[in-house]
Amino acid sequence: MALKALFEPRSVAIIGASSNPARIGGRPIAYYLAAGFKGAIYPVNPNREEIQGLKAYPDMASIPGSVDLAILAISANGVADAVKECGKKGVKSIVLFSAGFSELGDEGDQLQADVDQAAKQYGIRILGPNCLGLYNADNGNCPTFTSGLEGGFPNKGRVGLITQSGAYGTHLLTMAKSRRLGVSKWISTGNEGDITVAECLEYLIDSDTVDVIGCYMEGVKKPETLIRALKKARAAGKAISIMKVGVSDVGSEAVQSHTASLTGSDASFQALIDQYGAQRAQTTEQMFDVLYAASLSPRAQGNKLGILTVSGGAGVLMADAAETQNLAVPAMPKQAQVKLVQRNPLCAPRNPVDITANALNDFALVGESLAAMCNEGGYDLLVAFFTSLIASPVHGEKLLATLSEGIKAQGKPFALIGQGPDEVLKKYEAAGIMVFEDPSRAVAALAALARFNTAFQQVDTDLVDLPNIGTINLPSEKIGEADAKQYMIRTGISVPAEELVKQPADAVKAANRLGYPVVMKIVSPDIAHKSEAGGVALNLANENEVQAAADLMLHTVAQREPTARIEGLLISPMIGNGVDLIVGSQCDPIMGPIIMVGLGGIYTEILKDVKVALAPVTAKQALAMLQSLRGAALLAGVRGQAAVDVNAVADAVCRLSVLAVQNADTIESIEINPLRAMEKGALALDALIIAKQTA
Amino acid sequence: MALKALFEPRSVAIIGASSNPARIGGRPIAYYLAAGFKGAIYPVNPNREEIQGLKAYPDMASIPGSVDLAILAISANGVADAVKECGKKGVKSIVLFSAGFSELGDEGDQLQADVDQAAKQYGIRILGPNCLGLYNADNGNCPTFTSGLEGGFPNKGRVGLITQSGAYGTHLLTMAKSRRLGVSKWISTGNEGDITVAECLEYLIDSDTVDVIGCYMEGVKKPETLIRALKKARAAGKAISIMKVGVSDVGSEAVQSHTASLTGSDASFQALIDQYGAQRAQTTEQMFDVLYAASLSPRAQGNKLGILTVSGGAGVLMADAAETQNLAVPAMPKQAQVKLVQRNPLCAPRNPVDITANALNDFALVGESLAAMCNEGGYDLLVAFFTSLIASPVHGEKLLATLSEGIKAQGKPFALIGQGPDEVLKKYEAAGIMVFEDPSRAVAALAALARFNTAFQQVDTDLVDLPNIGTINLPSEKIGEADAKQYMIRTGISVPAEELVKQPADAVKAANRLGYPVVMKIVSPDIAHKSEAGGVALNLANENEVQAAADLMLHTVAQREPTARIEGLLISPMIGNGVDLIVGSQCDPIMGPIIMVGLGGIYTEILKDVKVALAPVTAKQALAMLQSLRGAALLAGVRGQAAVDVNAVADAVCRLSVLAVQNADTIESIEINPLRAMEKGALALDALIIAKQTA
Repeated sequence: MALKALFEPRSVAIIGASSNPARIGGRPIAYYLAAGFKGAIYPVNPNREEIQGLKAYPDMASIPGSVDLAILAISANGVADAVKECGKKGVKSIVLFSAGFSELGDEGDQLQADVDQAAKQYGIRILGPNCLGLYNADNGNCPTFTSGLEGGFPNKGRVGLITQSGAYGTHLLTMAKSRRLGVSKWISTGNEGDITVAECLEYLIDSDTVDVIGCYMEGVKKPETLIRALKKARAAGKAISIMKVGVSDVGSEAVQSHTASLTGSDASFQALIDQYGAQRAQTTEQMFDVLYAASLSPRAQGNKLGILTVSGGAGVLMADAAETQNLAVPAMPKQAQVKLVQRNPLCAPRNPVDITANALNDFALVGESLAAMCNEGGYDLLVAFFTSLIASPVHGEKLLATLSEGIKAQGKPFALIGQGPDEVLKKYEAAGIMVFEDPSRAVAALAALARFNTAFQQVDTDLVDLPNIGTINLPSEKIGEADAKQYMIRTGISVPAEELVKQPADAVKAANRLGYPVVMKIVSPDIAHKSEAGGVALNLANENEVQAAADLMLHTVAQREPTARIEGLLISPMIGNGVDLIVGSQCDPIMGPIIMVGLGGIYTEILKDVKVALAPVTAKQALAMLQSLRGAALLAGVRGQAAVDVNAVADAVCRLSVLAVQNADTIESIEINPLRAMEKGALALDALIIAKQTA
Repeated sequence: MALKALFEPRSVAIIGASSNPARIGGRPIAYYLAAGFKGAIYPVNPNREEIQGLKAYPDMASIPGSVDLAILAISANGVADAVKECGKKGVKSIVLFSAGFSELGDEGDQLQADVDQAAKQYGIRILGPNCLGLYNADNGNCPTFTSGLEGGFPNKGRVGLITQSGAYGTHLLTMAKSRRLGVSKWISTGNEGDITVAECLEYLIDSDTVDVIGCYMEGVKKPETLIRALKKARAAGKAISIMKVGVSDVGSEAVQSHTASLTGSDASFQALIDQYGAQRAQTTEQMFDVLYAASLSPRAQGNKLGILTVSGGAGVLMADAAETQNLAVPAMPKQAQVKLVQRNPLCAPRNPVDITANALNDFALVGESLAAMCNEGGYDLLVAFFTSLIASPVHGEKLLATLSEGIKAQGKPFALIGQGPDEVLKKYEAAGIMVFEDPSRAVAALAALARFNTAFQQVDTDLVDLPNIGTINLPSEKIGEADAKQYMIRTGISVPAEELVKQPADAVKAANRLGYPVVMKIVSPDIAHKSEAGGVALNLANENEVQAAADLMLHTVAQREPTARIEGLLISPMIGNGVDLIVGSQCDPIMGPIIMVGLGGIYTEILKDVKVALAPVTAKQALAMLQSLRGAALLAGVRGQAAVDVNAVADAVCRLSVLAVQNADTIESIEINPLRAMEKGALALDALIIAKQTA
């Protein structure tokens, strides 16, 4: 528990303490007092005897008791000395508000280095610099000057919020308050000179008082910590929603001018999120909707949505939204439909179950219909449209009682579409019922719960199901087709039979041995696109054609790529029909090796129909990637063509991913393009391995 | 102005009037009184002398003055007689609340027919049945029993809301109130026995007091009216946001059980919306955001977004959102950047312009930076992040004054990301400044304004720029390749040179005339997929190959399609390389002929990379369709291939669309598959015309 002193200090000192609760050195003290913090609070200020009713101390050494946590609200150039002073006092953790470090370039970098050295010397962990601190509702620990706590603390609850940006973090905290979210902890990490979002995430996942966590990130500094945290969260069934910005060109430029973090490739970050079943929030509101849903609802058990409505129109709208969100909307069983209509002749009983405005005349219909949907319909998730009826002076209380009872008995996630004042919404929320104004948002939040459930069911495969390919150390240089294919064979990936020859005459002999028709390709470590260099000849039917093609190819390539080293001509039999794919690994600077598979050729380049995952992937994971391609139907066979051997493809993807991980330190990318998937088997028709550039 | 009496009656009668303002026949009276309606109000009820303080009349005939509008709050089986009574009294318009008509099947259909007949006899226009009526803020006309007016009327403003669903319409009205939207008119159309959403839309577009309109639709009953309305809206620069539900399988089933309207194909509806630049809202909130933005903001003049922020993180987030929304985020001019940094050393001046928390110490920075962005940056749209500062006791008033002045001088759409109580938000809104809590929603709303601007600049091309193809009456029967190609030639679409022969020997002679290599295809009106029937042979190089292919083809086809009528063999020269597209028309039951173009072959079927528009389209419109294909880069030439002749493709698409419109009554679909686009020209390699089935 390296962060225990930061989150649960028994005593706190504020260096740069101020009597003015509006100032950066005064606010934390005011918040500590308002929150009823039970530990000792020591303002440090050489010019005051007393600050905000507390005895002030001239320096750290004068403080009588021990200090777990120090808050530094002083200018940047005094920070390193203050850290040393804290170290001598035995402080374990520091919250460093001060700006003026690495976000300002070289001079700031030097200040940061001085601080790092002092912290290391005394074993002090630091949150910041350039951060707004944190808030822990469990114990009233408030080492923060965020304005988000002005006007009151948020409701206590089981949500954690972690944010790299201070100002945006304050915005999030204020949103949490206005949306009645129950907050346990809020943390702003700033420049992350030491403690990162990922480390805080891990701490919150380990915390007993946090179930659901929202993160706002600009860059990933410790991917290994993030990966460990996400794994833990999945194993513990804790829902994580992450908003990572800096995706656009302008956005990532702004990130780099704004903090010192590397943004990393978005595709690999997305792959990480997908792998561990966290939610990638595209908008702030989407993140809040998920936090709201996950903190109020029991865990979803499946993805079948039951829709209860008093408006046909709203029912249709919610059914549309369910399709968009990949939720199933199965019909009620026939018998149950008959019973619903017998009881309520105007009822549309299928699903959506439209009980119409009749419900207002005979209120028992609401409870009975809901029970029928849960018990006979077997839905996993429920959404109900009652609009402003939920706050109606006539029907409101009855509706609340009926729905609360109904849903308590079932223990299923339940979203209500309704409108009313906060006091009314709070009553529903206290019963575990979410209330949304927009039906589409309600359905999206339910769908997120269903996806979390799917993710929580995944076992961590890690390396358990991976094939043993032995130890293959790829040389740290560019490896052309012929050698690359030898490595593919060692990795367990099939390649066509082939012979490498130097002379046209040998090409003819090789073709005679391999059998016609044959394919001829130039072999050179310097030529990436063979076709464009004139280095590919297909469907050569006899000796004469092979001889002519070899002469022409050597001549053309010599003209087009005069500096390329030519290793010879590769002769192989023409391969049968099938579907061409591209399989590749790429070493991401932040995430390490990622693996990609897609439909081959120009369609990969133009339609971008590829899937990416962190390497290694098991064959099962690779199969799921293949099946989620937009063009997956091509693999199942279209227009009477046979389905291709997707298991062979998945096996190749898996094996390549293992090879990439083994060689992550030296190899930049490995690419099989194309991998020909046939009715039986899959062959790497070409392969290329590129080593990392050594500086 | 067929609907004038409905929206602007001088006198109103309520048949089924009730003293109880909570009842369906009592609510409208209470609303009329509360709204201060200036015209005469006549409650009709044989059992009362007085209702809600007004003199009541036993029947229509007893009313002393004339009646423009009657409200029918009675049960369905009395409606036809009441309509006749109204007719005799000279009533021009009726709002029919009663349910129990076509939504209940055969019996209801008969009641509807009786009502229709009575209305027709007396020339009365009817809103409903099964509707909640309407509200007109301009004159306090309230023929409605929606609960959405309980607790007060919405703010007056320039927004119109039209909804097919009554209950969802009430939800929308309540949302409009809670979001402080200024409403001019609200209309619920219900079953649309007479007046449709489209007709109301046209009325609102013609209205001087409405600028911005939101529609909720389940089906399109009068497409010609809708098309006319959307054209008018575009010409008048009025922003329309339409939410059409029933898109999913379950949803469209529910629509059909819920109302009597045909949902129509969603792709053709989308094509209609796209063509006239309305917004298709995917969610209710998206619709409200657009209504909010368009009702508060001046018209956008372009799509360049300037981002002002006090938080680097929020700036990055907004830049990302801008990319998602296809807005441009160009940098400030270098000189302007230098000035910003001279004035404010911590400023990140590029765009996002991050003025940092420094702004709080030197407030003039806010106004100066905003001015620099407008004047020197030349942005068309502005978004600024000030979070809860907008309501800060210290800075709030100054910020309001600075931003209001700044934006008044510029007249540009301006969205603020802020948090505060409604009273504060209202002040910004009064200054024409939108306030959003979620930055992504703010950017999306600005992007919608930019798209409206683009649409408003389109001139209505109608048939002006269409080629004259003469009059071509396609026969009302299935037309196979050979005849279909003759029609293509008459339409001005090129096809390969070719000859139709009956015997293998004639095939050889034809090939000799056309020149080798040739292609041979079976000709039969009964075979749609020639390849699968064994009816295609490519690349035949000489007499022997042609002879052999012809013998084999006739034999194979006879075996695989024994009942197909064989008209002969079509011989044509092999065509040069290029990109194969599919071009087709389809007659939508609601929208009429629509035209589709996409990349050909399995990629159309599997990746669904096609664009659809209402026919006819001009060549310019067709070109825009081509350029918006995901795979458009294929047409520009990849991997050293030449770009294809997109103008020739666009011309073919345009001509086919004209042919489809000419034959809309009899022809179901026309398909060119493939259309081979080459470096110069485009050739219809195959074509098929299918007539409508006559019942």
